[in-house]
Amino acid sequence: MEMREGRSRRIPDTTIRRLPAYLRVLELTHADRITSVALGKAAGYSSEQVRKDFAYFGAFGTRGVGYEVAFLVREIRRILGIDQGVKVMVVGAGHLGTALVRYTQNNRGDAKVVAVVDVNPAVIGTSIGSLVVEDARDLERLVHERQITMAVLTVPDYAARAAAERLADAGIRAILNFAPVSVLTERPEVIVKNIDLMLELQALAYFVKGGAPGEAEDLEA
Amino acid sequence: MEMREGRSRRIPDTTIRRLPAYLRVLELTHADRITSVALGKAAGYSSEQVRKDFAYFGAFGTRGVGYEVAFLVREIRRILGIDQGVKVMVVGAGHLGTALVRYTQNNRGDAKVVAVVDVNPAVIGTSIGSLVVEDARDLERLVHERQITMAVLTVPDYAARAAAERLADAGIRAILNFAPVSVLTERPEVIVKNIDLMLELQALAYFVKGGAPGEAEDLEA
Repeated sequence: MEMREGRSRRIPDTTIRRLPAYLRVLELTHADRITSVALGKAAGYSSEQVRKDFAYFGAFGTRGVGYEVAFLVREIRRILGIDQGVKVMVVGAGHLGTALVRYTQNNRGDAKVVAVVDVNPAVIGTSIGSLVVEDARDLERLVHERQITMAVLTVPDYAARAAAERLADAGIRAILNFAPVSVLTERPEVIVKNIDLMLELQALAYFVKGGAPGEAEDLEA
Repeated sequence: MEMREGRSRRIPDTTIRRLPAYLRVLELTHADRITSVALGKAAGYSSEQVRKDFAYFGAFGTRGVGYEVAFLVREIRRILGIDQGVKVMVVGAGHLGTALVRYTQNNRGDAKVVAVVDVNPAVIGTSIGSLVVEDARDLERLVHERQITMAVLTVPDYAARAAAERLADAGIRAILNFAPVSVLTERPEVIVKNIDLMLELQALAYFVKGGAPGEAEDLEA
């Protein structure tokens, strides 16, 4: 099992998106080694998929013995760039924003919410766990002072694009967007991942109707 | 522009997952016709992607004139199986469950939450918009009586697998799962889509670090 520097830039996006799921399983593993079968089963992927994904960054298990857990954890964290931690701002402290802040406070993971902002005076100053909701007018200052690089957007749809512009101007490079807006921003320097409940439900409806359970794996990708 | 029956079963999953985004744009369109360029721009995909996706179900636009909006809306709704509406149960009425129920009440879409349940006596009987939170002990009865086919799971991780088993036993065929559990159920008749904030944030971290904005399109897929 070896790691070749410089290869990591060519890891496919689809593999990158599975690495956090592998990482979660590995971090909960008490054994020193894990087989691709055991890891795949726990993470929800086939052992073939695990072996293929790991081969992209030069990790090869030993037959019958598996992969060294500590090595994989270290490499995946390095590849994802979370070995230094990731600082996140939640924009919008409604039910969804509150749920997301609590979730990151209660669950293991390297992304840490270090600021939550809202425009509503009735909400500003209230607490969500260990965080106090701050005034959205201070968004730029907070991003700079706390060296925040990512944001989670849970504002209403009509406020989403303006919020995204301000986040981009402040230097935010990635936005996880829960507002039902198809094109949040056209700025090329900002990565946006949309999560839209209604679209997810409508897509699931097809698989319910079609009765195509074998396609679940594909849905997860 | 024509529709050939029987071809729809071979539409790729990746296309299916883009149809709801197209549908949202089409339903908000006032014009009778729309070009692939306009539709793609509004939905966040390239015009080539739009043309390719629509060709799978036999919809071909007329050069310079585009697609007939009413036809596309009808076909996409039929293909997704949402022309009859989709009845959804939300399991877990915490902040996230509450946010999701409100979202479906406030936003256009064909999936309708018709029941929300919780185990907490302090929450049972309270209202979320027009719905009253019901006792999770009545889950099976509610699924049958209201002909619910899909569920959204927002319970804590330790309760997720047991809830999924009960939902599957009750006849639920698709679960949108927000609990941080990699393998919610192994029952082949149930489609599960996991949405996990921490995994999404960790995957985004890679793209922030790598500075690969061109891959945003792929992330959306």
